[in-house]
Amino acid sequence: MKVRNLLGERLKTVSEDCQIESQALMLRGGYMKNVANGIYSFYPPTQRISKKIQQILREEMDRIDGQEVLFPVVMPASLWEQSGRYTSIGSEMCRFTDRSDNKMVLGMTHEEAAVQLSSNVAKSYTQYPYMIYQIQTKFRDEPRSRGGLIRVREFTMKDAYSFHTSQKDLEKYYKRAYEAYNRIFKRCGLKNFIAVKSDSGMMGGKISHEYMALTDIGEDTLVLCDCGYKSNMEVADSIVCNEAATPNELKKVPTPGKKTIEDVCKFLNADVINSCKAVMYQENLTDKYVVVFLRGDLEVNETKLRNYLKKEIHPAVDVECAGLVAGYCGPYGLKTSATIVYDKSLQGAANLVAGGNEVDVHYTGLNIERDIGKVKYVDVAKAKEGGICPVCGKPTLRISRGIEIGNIFQLGDKYTKSMEMTYLDAANTAQYPIMGCYGIGVGRLIAAVCQESRDEYGPIWPISIAPWQVEVCNLRVSDKDVTKTAEKLVKSLERAGIEVLYDDREVRPGFMFADADLFGVPLRVIVSPKTNERAVVEVVSRDKTIKTEFPVLSAAKEIVKLVKKMLKEFEV
Amino acid sequence: MKVRNLLGERLKTVSEDCQIESQALMLRGGYMKNVANGIYSFYPPTQRISKKIQQILREEMDRIDGQEVLFPVVMPASLWEQSGRYTSIGSEMCRFTDRSDNKMVLGMTHEEAAVQLSSNVAKSYTQYPYMIYQIQTKFRDEPRSRGGLIRVREFTMKDAYSFHTSQKDLEKYYKRAYEAYNRIFKRCGLKNFIAVKSDSGMMGGKISHEYMALTDIGEDTLVLCDCGYKSNMEVADSIVCNEAATPNELKKVPTPGKKTIEDVCKFLNADVINSCKAVMYQENLTDKYVVVFLRGDLEVNETKLRNYLKKEIHPAVDVECAGLVAGYCGPYGLKTSATIVYDKSLQGAANLVAGGNEVDVHYTGLNIERDIGKVKYVDVAKAKEGGICPVCGKPTLRISRGIEIGNIFQLGDKYTKSMEMTYLDAANTAQYPIMGCYGIGVGRLIAAVCQESRDEYGPIWPISIAPWQVEVCNLRVSDKDVTKTAEKLVKSLERAGIEVLYDDREVRPGFMFADADLFGVPLRVIVSPKTNERAVVEVVSRDKTIKTEFPVLSAAKEIVKLVKKMLKEFEV
Repeated sequence: MKVRNLLGERLKTVSEDCQIESQALMLRGGYMKNVANGIYSFYPPTQRISKKIQQILREEMDRIDGQEVLFPVVMPASLWEQSGRYTSIGSEMCRFTDRSDNKMVLGMTHEEAAVQLSSNVAKSYTQYPYMIYQIQTKFRDEPRSRGGLIRVREFTMKDAYSFHTSQKDLEKYYKRAYEAYNRIFKRCGLKNFIAVKSDSGMMGGKISHEYMALTDIGEDTLVLCDCGYKSNMEVADSIVCNEAATPNELKKVPTPGKKTIEDVCKFLNADVINSCKAVMYQENLTDKYVVVFLRGDLEVNETKLRNYLKKEIHPAVDVECAGLVAGYCGPYGLKTSATIVYDKSLQGAANLVAGGNEVDVHYTGLNIERDIGKVKYVDVAKAKEGGICPVCGKPTLRISRGIEIGNIFQLGDKYTKSMEMTYLDAANTAQYPIMGCYGIGVGRLIAAVCQESRDEYGPIWPISIAPWQVEVCNLRVSDKDVTKTAEKLVKSLERAGIEVLYDDREVRPGFMFADADLFGVPLRVIVSPKTNERAVVEVVSRDKTIKTEFPVLSAAKEIVKLVKKMLKEFEV
Repeated sequence: MKVRNLLGERLKTVSEDCQIESQALMLRGGYMKNVANGIYSFYPPTQRISKKIQQILREEMDRIDGQEVLFPVVMPASLWEQSGRYTSIGSEMCRFTDRSDNKMVLGMTHEEAAVQLSSNVAKSYTQYPYMIYQIQTKFRDEPRSRGGLIRVREFTMKDAYSFHTSQKDLEKYYKRAYEAYNRIFKRCGLKNFIAVKSDSGMMGGKISHEYMALTDIGEDTLVLCDCGYKSNMEVADSIVCNEAATPNELKKVPTPGKKTIEDVCKFLNADVINSCKAVMYQENLTDKYVVVFLRGDLEVNETKLRNYLKKEIHPAVDVECAGLVAGYCGPYGLKTSATIVYDKSLQGAANLVAGGNEVDVHYTGLNIERDIGKVKYVDVAKAKEGGICPVCGKPTLRISRGIEIGNIFQLGDKYTKSMEMTYLDAANTAQYPIMGCYGIGVGRLIAAVCQESRDEYGPIWPISIAPWQVEVCNLRVSDKDVTKTAEKLVKSLERAGIEVLYDDREVRPGFMFADADLFGVPLRVIVSPKTNERAVVEVVSRDKTIKTEFPVLSAAKEIVKLVKKMLKEFEV
């Protein structure tokens, strides 16, 4: 491929509003073009990267006995009504009616389609387990697309579905999928990624893991410990140890104008960990109020609260009408119809500062068991930096950020049961299969790799997924000898199966190299009057670890050897 | 892959209502499952065939300098409003609004997206010509899906778009695309296909060709001549030679109860070629009537009529209100506000039988120029079997049927002009690029190959696209020696890169072979106690042209050789 023929343009600056570096580099490098909010077309380099990733996905899915199938993008709503998700999923699912007024949806995931395809054909336990997967376009009407390919509305996804006769068999397979995912990300050249426990969200099921590329610009917050504990903040346990103390007297104290727990504690000369703060929510459907009391130094983990309440919630507005005094709400003397939730961080806490349920008034010396009575404590707080690890018990938690690049779920029988898919077991009894599902978004993976592997001049693509393996830069196309050397080399490399990008434009070397940096091709070969004079070619790697010369005569052979060696590093 | 693990079921009969044989065989063979009207999921064999075809498509597109890109399935309506197709295309285009109330469409073709991707990056004439292509899901809300994968609503399509600085350059490239298409269909194992001139329909542009797989169950009617003339009936010229004759007197004759032209001619003892019949239509938008007069033995070609009128039309209803007498409408004495169209077949015709515009009355001896005056003749009739070829002039036209399996269009500047995409030519003047576009639907191609290459027991897949190259049938899995032979062979073949389907189920040979027939794998290897005793394996080809035995010891080597030889036949 010649750069002069390649569709796309490299830019010095980017006009679109970019939140993250990989997005800016990929727009500057002619990788993609925005078509609508969260919808992109791919220029050839991105499609080349995408196809290489798809090939890795296929190989690893086949390695764990996957069978490739194809589900439709457009599905009848009836299929989603069977599973109950037609109503349980909100406006991120795209719905429309076809010309015959049938309700249709655009697939955002394909559990229903996988069950439909399996129904009536996997009838005997002898046919289990099996796994089917596809690589297909998905559409999710995200409210906020961001970061280029990080969060889009339309994307190519590898989604896999496994079917089992027991939870135990699913767990066995789940481990294989877990390992396959590790291999996939390694083969794609990602270095900093981990699998964390996660919330299963709209998928249903109990156990699930997210694969996270660790990066400061990640949308997800992760809780990690040196002992190996890894969890998405959404589901991370918050463990708090309160020291015992002799109970003081409960006292009403004036706290004029002090509304935040930090201000109150400062004013009263108390430590924030000896305070009880209130955070107020409302249920989405009923507007009913929910008050969470937790230790003043902690934050509410809304996912855990949501899972505990089994209700969707939002931050409360207009709390006065529920008898709640904003800024001064506390458990003592509170008169309200709101649901009260006590976080575990208050268990065993003594002598707390807490709201007095009157403007400008707080209490000190609050001891919940003595002053309120027995209450139920629930863990609805966020884990925090330096917090106690639920596995090793040491106060060594670290908080990191990550981009979700894949996920695996143990679904149980949610879909097979609701859609009435059964098989006959050895005793000839009808049973619901147990399912697992496994997803990886291709575009987001490309963006995550770019975000991790880049410098200020462009992406540094791992050779396993790079759009081309070698770029040959001809610095003087008007010089017949230089061009002869370059073209001969390009041909020899291509004959040896190497993917070559060839730049023979009549442009300044600086311009050509700036473009090459944006292409991010792992190996760059420079042919110029100078190198030609000495009968060598110059070879530098995009990551600057290699800078060498090869004699023109053996250059092709040496470069092929080098490419093979570099590829080998990504074999797993 | 083992048959026992393969998802899908083979059936003796098919429950779905099937119009054509390939549909029935593919449903019986576990190739696909209906999800909704015109929407299918693919089981693994079909997805394997599809991927092989996609690989052939990529190779041939790359061979004519194509660059693979990716356009979105979901596009903003604004893009289609620019080209004018948002309003010009009817309800076959799926429209919806996203969560932010933006109008969106599902891509049924991607000219607009190709121009959008090219805009502002192909700015200089030096960057031309170029061709971009994608392989993507398309959705067309067809009113009548039929024939399994022949006519569906959702399908995978290879669509390509070329951009040129002149019509001449487009024509040069168009020839290359034409040849690439011939190679593609040959490589996919299709034998009876031709390219015919076609109507460009909603695509715009003037010259276009359709590739047609010739088959009785085809939806398209083709007009062919031994001289090489090939055309879709939709655009085929109808040439009629009327013999000169001495004009007779115009006479009003009673024709009680004779409404069809055949009945009238029989009653009057006249030849149908000496009659003038009337066919009535109405314009879709205005309901205005259109009366076509043509020779009694011919049919109206509605596509040509539509193109002449530049209006959409439908057969007329309730003609009396327009002053037209159904069954007795003729050019003489007709009083109507309807548009009158005279087909060329009436030019020079003498002494015609024609309607009298009164119930039970016709005329004989009608001579249009004498009795009506000068009229304009237009070719709006269908070509007919034995008709005159517009190229060689001989009365040797044949009518065939075909399935459209691909098309290529010369688009001109319809899209670049309406979407304001320009480049600077050598004189620094802004110009609109000239476009061509080139499509092939993967699923329909699979169905067309199956329709052509099959017997009553199942498909006979060409080895170039077969889901597997070899099926090994183990007829006695309980016999350890037989199983050892079979498994060793499977392993050796797989190590040699052969795609093997292995059947080791404990089923009767007849049952196993019936399934094998439905899988349609080109080579079948049978291992049984009998063959094992003689230290051979039996090898038969699905098309029955090969039936041989190989010694167990050299079987793998011989089969690999055979597969390579068979594959070679599809190289172009």
